[in-house]
Amino acid sequence: MTDSNKMWGGRFAAGPDAIMEAINASIGFDQRLAAQDIEGSRAHAAMLAACDIITDSDAEAIREGLLTVLSEIEAGDFNFSTALEDIHMNVEARLKDLIGTPAGRLHTARSRNDQVAVDFRLWVRDQCDAAISGITALIAALLGQAERGADMVMPGFTHLQSAQPVTWGHHMMAYVEMLGRDRARFQDARTRMNESPLGAAALAGTSFPIDREMTAKALGFDRPMANSLDAVSDRDFALEYLSSATICAMHLSRLAEELVIWSSAQFRFVALSDRFSTGSSIMPQKKNPDAAELIRAKIGRILGAQVGLLTVMKGLPLTYSKDMQEDKEKVFDAADSLMLALAAMEGMMGDLKPNAKVLAEAAGAGFATATDLADWLVRTLNLPFREAHHVTGALVKKAEDKDADLADLSLAEMQEVNADITQDVFSVLTPQASVASRTSYGGTAPGQVHTQIARWRAKL
Amino acid sequence: MTDSNKMWGGRFAAGPDAIMEAINASIGFDQRLAAQDIEGSRAHAAMLAACDIITDSDAEAIREGLLTVLSEIEAGDFNFSTALEDIHMNVEARLKDLIGTPAGRLHTARSRNDQVAVDFRLWVRDQCDAAISGITALIAALLGQAERGADMVMPGFTHLQSAQPVTWGHHMMAYVEMLGRDRARFQDARTRMNESPLGAAALAGTSFPIDREMTAKALGFDRPMANSLDAVSDRDFALEYLSSATICAMHLSRLAEELVIWSSAQFRFVALSDRFSTGSSIMPQKKNPDAAELIRAKIGRILGAQVGLLTVMKGLPLTYSKDMQEDKEKVFDAADSLMLALAAMEGMMGDLKPNAKVLAEAAGAGFATATDLADWLVRTLNLPFREAHHVTGALVKKAEDKDADLADLSLAEMQEVNADITQDVFSVLTPQASVASRTSYGGTAPGQVHTQIARWRAKL
Amino acid sequence: MTDSNKMWGGRFAAGPDAIMEAINASIGFDQRLAAQDIEGSRAHAAMLAACDIITDSDAEAIREGLLTVLSEIEAGDFNFSTALEDIHMNVEARLKDLIGTPAGRLHTARSRNDQVAVDFRLWVRDQCDAAISGITALIAALLGQAERGADMVMPGFTHLQSAQPVTWGHHMMAYVEMLGRDRARFQDARTRMNESPLGAAALAGTSFPIDREMTAKALGFDRPMANSLDAVSDRDFALEYLSSATICAMHLSRLAEELVIWSSAQFRFVALSDRFSTGSSIMPQKKNPDAAELIRAKIGRILGAQVGLLTVMKGLPLTYSKDMQEDKEKVFDAADSLMLALAAMEGMMGDLKPNAKVLAEAAGAGFATATDLADWLVRTLNLPFREAHHVTGALVKKAEDKDADLADLSLAEMQEVNADITQDVFSVLTPQASVASRTSYGGTAPGQVHTQIARWRAKL
Amino acid sequence: MTDSNKMWGGRFAAGPDAIMEAINASIGFDQRLAAQDIEGSRAHAAMLAACDIITDSDAEAIREGLLTVLSEIEAGDFNFSTALEDIHMNVEARLKDLIGTPAGRLHTARSRNDQVAVDFRLWVRDQCDAAISGITALIAALLGQAERGADMVMPGFTHLQSAQPVTWGHHMMAYVEMLGRDRARFQDARTRMNESPLGAAALAGTSFPIDREMTAKALGFDRPMANSLDAVSDRDFALEYLSSATICAMHLSRLAEELVIWSSAQFRFVALSDRFSTGSSIMPQKKNPDAAELIRAKIGRILGAQVGLLTVMKGLPLTYSKDMQEDKEKVFDAADSLMLALAAMEGMMGDLKPNAKVLAEAAGAGFATATDLADWLVRTLNLPFREAHHVTGALVKKAEDKDADLADLSLAEMQEVNADITQDVFSVLTPQASVASRTSYGGTAPGQVHTQIARWRAKL
Repeated sequence: MTDSNKMWGGRFAAGPDAIMEAINASIGFDQRLAAQDIEGSRAHAAMLAACDIITDSDAEAIREGLLTVLSEIEAGDFNFSTALEDIHMNVEARLKDLIGTPAGRLHTARSRNDQVAVDFRLWVRDQCDAAISGITALIAALLGQAERGADMVMPGFTHLQSAQPVTWGHHMMAYVEMLGRDRARFQDARTRMNESPLGAAALAGTSFPIDREMTAKALGFDRPMANSLDAVSDRDFALEYLSSATICAMHLSRLAEELVIWSSAQFRFVALSDRFSTGSSIMPQKKNPDAAELIRAKIGRILGAQVGLLTVMKGLPLTYSKDMQEDKEKVFDAADSLMLALAAMEGMMGDLKPNAKVLAEAAGAGFATATDLADWLVRTLNLPFREAHHVTGALVKKAEDKDADLADLSLAEMQEVNADITQDVFSVLTPQASVASRTSYGGTAPGQVHTQIARWRAKL
Repeated sequence: MTDSNKMWGGRFAAGPDAIMEAINASIGFDQRLAAQDIEGSRAHAAMLAACDIITDSDAEAIREGLLTVLSEIEAGDFNFSTALEDIHMNVEARLKDLIGTPAGRLHTARSRNDQVAVDFRLWVRDQCDAAISGITALIAALLGQAERGADMVMPGFTHLQSAQPVTWGHHMMAYVEMLGRDRARFQDARTRMNESPLGAAALAGTSFPIDREMTAKALGFDRPMANSLDAVSDRDFALEYLSSATICAMHLSRLAEELVIWSSAQFRFVALSDRFSTGSSIMPQKKNPDAAELIRAKIGRILGAQVGLLTVMKGLPLTYSKDMQEDKEKVFDAADSLMLALAAMEGMMGDLKPNAKVLAEAAGAGFATATDLADWLVRTLNLPFREAHHVTGALVKKAEDKDADLADLSLAEMQEVNADITQDVFSVLTPQASVASRTSYGGTAPGQVHTQIARWRAKL
Repeated sequence: MTDSNKMWGGRFAAGPDAIMEAINASIGFDQRLAAQDIEGSRAHAAMLAACDIITDSDAEAIREGLLTVLSEIEAGDFNFSTALEDIHMNVEARLKDLIGTPAGRLHTARSRNDQVAVDFRLWVRDQCDAAISGITALIAALLGQAERGADMVMPGFTHLQSAQPVTWGHHMMAYVEMLGRDRARFQDARTRMNESPLGAAALAGTSFPIDREMTAKALGFDRPMANSLDAVSDRDFALEYLSSATICAMHLSRLAEELVIWSSAQFRFVALSDRFSTGSSIMPQKKNPDAAELIRAKIGRILGAQVGLLTVMKGLPLTYSKDMQEDKEKVFDAADSLMLALAAMEGMMGDLKPNAKVLAEAAGAGFATATDLADWLVRTLNLPFREAHHVTGALVKKAEDKDADLADLSLAEMQEVNADITQDVFSVLTPQASVASRTSYGGTAPGQVHTQIARWRAKL
Repeated sequence: MTDSNKMWGGRFAAGPDAIMEAINASIGFDQRLAAQDIEGSRAHAAMLAACDIITDSDAEAIREGLLTVLSEIEAGDFNFSTALEDIHMNVEARLKDLIGTPAGRLHTARSRNDQVAVDFRLWVRDQCDAAISGITALIAALLGQAERGADMVMPGFTHLQSAQPVTWGHHMMAYVEMLGRDRARFQDARTRMNESPLGAAALAGTSFPIDREMTAKALGFDRPMANSLDAVSDRDFALEYLSSATICAMHLSRLAEELVIWSSAQFRFVALSDRFSTGSSIMPQKKNPDAAELIRAKIGRILGAQVGLLTVMKGLPLTYSKDMQEDKEKVFDAADSLMLALAAMEGMMGDLKPNAKVLAEAAGAGFATATDLADWLVRTLNLPFREAHHVTGALVKKAEDKDADLADLSLAEMQEVNADITQDVFSVLTPQASVASRTSYGGTAPGQVHTQIARWRAKL
């Protein structure tokens, strides 16, 4: 019998009290909210004194005592007790040890329901800030790549088939756009969640003459939440954080997939640094893109967290139900995963070396400038678009029959297909010419890439 | 053998061409984008003419012809062809029938990749607007309920156990807050998605001297998207719509659950109107809350759509891959489900009759004002919170032993537990007094409820 | 700045090596596979010796040394090293410390790819066994409830509206059926996964003359897996475990929801024991069904795990990719959640007290025997079903107008509606008579309930 | 204003009755159950007559009438009415038109609750059979590929990096194993679901002397379900179908991803047939793997369906709730998606041409036989595994310095690293020798591949 079975055998044998403690206690994970819990309590105590609900000296004792508790926790000197169930009771019990009776006045006009709501909201708000920083750092790394490769040609793919030449810088900037939207989503989420549940008490508000604006302000919130039932029932802030994280993780998975494919022996588009790949002791050329693969996978647990929390919240009557205790571990894990993925991707994109020679060769292969030719026919000879495509098809066929590229056809050969074609056509048949011509706003031309880099640098 | 098997027997037998057509063609569902497709094409044609890429007369022929196509589609007179694969080719083919050669110039400086991106984005943007309208209407219905029941007492629940008295109006306003956040999320999503992909062409932009600002403006977009690769690869707008819809559907599932529980014979808190319930021919008192149950369930398909589209997008290299064709049906279905759920909930909340008598009785049962008593002890006798709880517990025990309520104890009996208690204590022991006392901002007191109703009426 | 931010600030600052270690190392969680890893290695060493690939004395040294490592780990005396990355390298490094050179021969004809596949498969197989045990114990608790309440009447609900009387025992047995299917699903999953990946080596098999049947047998597998690429790529076993766990968790969520509703003050159908509920210090009648709520919520993280792992596996090319390292934490957490939910539910169902008096009153209310009356009309008077319903509706209306129950009507009053009705009709109008009459196979009659209890007792 | 908005504008305007009809009626989709509904009713009528509950002539009229209804539906001559809400009422109403009074006796001892349960279960059972057929056909196509390429060498990948040579046949057989497990899962699901809910009536069973064994047998079920409450509440059969479908779709997504990568210009491992790819009118070499991409995406909607239905079922109290009406569309769509993906993949794998020359070159590149060399050192020179790896590393380094492959080193050069190396070492340094040596059970050696092909051919 293996370890895990023994454990469960033991747990089943342990009887109902142990089972209830195991399923009910949250201190195993909510201790991660210690700093937020103490921050919230200190603000609450100061407000109680300001409103003459407790004395100034009690408030002072509470606020100082809480700082002591915090320093004990940060130093690793705190004994978390499962019997005390959660972080709130652990902190309050220790405060009582330290300061005695005044500790008993801290919970006036408050309940664990609004307390946990404020703690968790502060934690998630911090994670929005962390995500915004992490994304910003990754954008900076991508801007560096874009700048260095603004005029480096590479194949632009659809269906993983080369479609038209693009620039490396332009490809990098596509991810900057995605990440820019991610950043904005976290900013919107942060703004929306930045309201204080403190003062909702158990669920109905309180008859004490509290000042919710004061605690809201002290905790950096824009305002108190406007409905006490909502304040203790709401987990939208966590869900919106997770929604934003999931979409961001999806973007990272796409870039990670490209890195895996690009670093294959068949593509050789890029070289990953040794720091973000692992080797084989006997196959020196093998560089496994481990970090990229792990980043690609992170969407799994982040999306899983989102699905999990939505499933928990589905169909819950108001207000607080214990089901909602399942919110934290999911969000903790998703946030750690996102931040790690962002940091690893930033590191990789800083180190990444595109292989300009291979990219250029691939960009020119496969009649990749056929659409340039068709556009030239429309633009210069005024053929209708659909007819220009027909002519281009015939020219490509001619080149293919000769096992040559479009640029290898002679003007005479071209004129056999359409007599109006002129020497000027050759100016659009190289990948360099192709990308240079795509000067429409947001197009792949190096000038456009530089414009967008400048716009982003100004924006950050 | 059943029907479905026969079909599949047939399909397997039908050979590869039929299978490929079945899996590849999108006209079966993307015809729903017809209006958007034509709107986008009309804007494109006008721009091509304004930029001297096509002639004014060609543009005029195209724009008129497209209106004809639209009216044919709206009248149901259009034969959609699977051989033409998608809505874009169906419309263009019909345009060619109608106006001949100029139709061949419409696709200049454009590709199906940016065309479908603009069509679908316009459709989703409309759905954001529809969701905002639907939510606003539901909020209005809830405000009506809140106003009519601003001082109607009912039990406030935690764990589906009565915790403290609250007001019906306050409970309704909790959902107004949730829906208010939903509305804001759709607004943010709309703002973020309101950029035009048109002009990205296949993926790299174009060498034609197009004016992307002009088409963006014509289609109501704030600006053109800044990266052509991103423009044809991005489905964030659909994902953010779905994220917002999922959270909104979760809120609806909570309210729907309450309606199901409240309309049970055991609760009898509310009476649903006949219009949103179904009866039994032989059990006249049975009113099945069908609409509420179906609303409760809608989160399933909306969340399913979100998971589905995220799974599709996970790990896709840039730019367009055919996988992305799987985006539309999911979003169509989710949007229909959301709108139907909002409309049905609005109808139900308009009709709903709370049972004031039952609510009031339930609000007063079970020592529901025990926390009011404890708060009175803190406030009036200055007991520390934790000690006040201890005294309250003893008083409740005394009442329970007499099989009476707290308000049924005499002052003398109370003073046996704590000698300082005065007659004033009885002023907080009824549900009405309890709710009246919760005047903290966002609390359940009728005055607070009216304040919030007024704030929302001003806001809408 | 809060704790979590500082951590991340620190991590970002820590540089690429720390980031790579943080994202890449698995020892933080895969140490949970230690027993399985050692079990697999011991079987492998014995086989290598039996096949003359290593000497008997080397094998013996390895096998003894591994036992020492295991006892160190079980005693908590083992220093897990992140630099050694995973459980496999940690164990092997320690083995080398203990026995020297022979340790270097253990990895002959093996790779970490098949090693981790065998470890994790053994762990998941154990969890199938644990789930089967946990479900069986819960079924036993439900059979006890069913037996004690085989003839206790209660309302049978559709739409949470009373539809027909049923027996408590029958309701309990519905969950026995669900859990019986769950048990069978875990058994099928166990059978399907019970094949050994060991010997697949890195991915292609090996040129050493190994005996895969021997290691398979030693580890309790039915046979070796038949394709080495599949052996190192497959995570179906984890997914099928998760699928089964998700459906089981859904069943538990339904029962938990019923417990929450039934223990409300409005229903009072059951009393939860104090061991699985929590009280309020000042509201003694309040018994919060915390355990039931937490069980109801567990489907969230289990479904989240399944969605997460499927998303990870989606679109991965063969064979091993590092993405697959994301498999374990999800499954560990889901398995812990399932086992805890099963144990808590077993405890609750053992303790649960149905309130026979309340159940009986509710069972008789609301014309709950109207369908019995209709069936009597069909059976005795040979009315067509649809006509019998019409007559019943008229009789119910008559009773309702008198504010009485069906059984309170006189025979004469009944005969005013249909002259053929006889005294015998009253034999079907009580809840007891109703349930007693439902003797069709699988029906709610007490005799049927006892039959099914006996069948299940024989089966377990 | 666009079309969809107008529709919704209209719907909002349409008033509560239209909204209720839109959300409540199921005939729009459950008409797909017509054949199953009629099959179930015919079996029920025959049983009622056999049990003397209705007369033989009534039963005969009903059974004949139902055949007429079925032929009308199959011929497309049936007017489905939304006012009649669902398929059951539509069929029964038409039956009444056709045969009059006896139609009113069909519903004796039955309810819509068990009726819909039997209909949908029959439909899903058919889909299990269809999936089994579809998978079997795909396995056959893969066996054909495996046989033709049993000794064709190709690179075996980990992390999309070449790790060791394998055979094409072996790679194909890896998918055969996966699909074999999928097939078994559908078979287990079919067995588990093959019990009849018919006779459970509304929820409690019935007092009519029905014979549930008889209807079970007539409908091909193994037995009646043993609990009537479970019979009308259970949707496990749909969930287990979806779970199995999701895992199968995941396997298809992996193979599809490989096809997309392999058909890129950089890999050129395979050529897709024109039938399952789409071209570009002007880039003849571009073959977009549309079918592969769409197959890769199908996991999205199938997983979405599973998540959706689980979310719907989460926390539903017994027995039937209207939420459960949301089960069908999800399953219909998932089943169609799965069957289409299987059919398309079968077609593609039948047509697929591996590029033997490219595969062989890739198999030999990058020191792919380094592990063969290390194994030779262990096997022949009896070096410990870890030391053999060290020697191999040195030899690879030597070759790399010469810009040569391992096989290009002279024996003398090898002996500089380890003096005991003999000429025999060259027998393991080609990809062909490598794969030929991997003769362990389930290994990549051509002989093993043929063994497994034969085993599968015998099994199917």
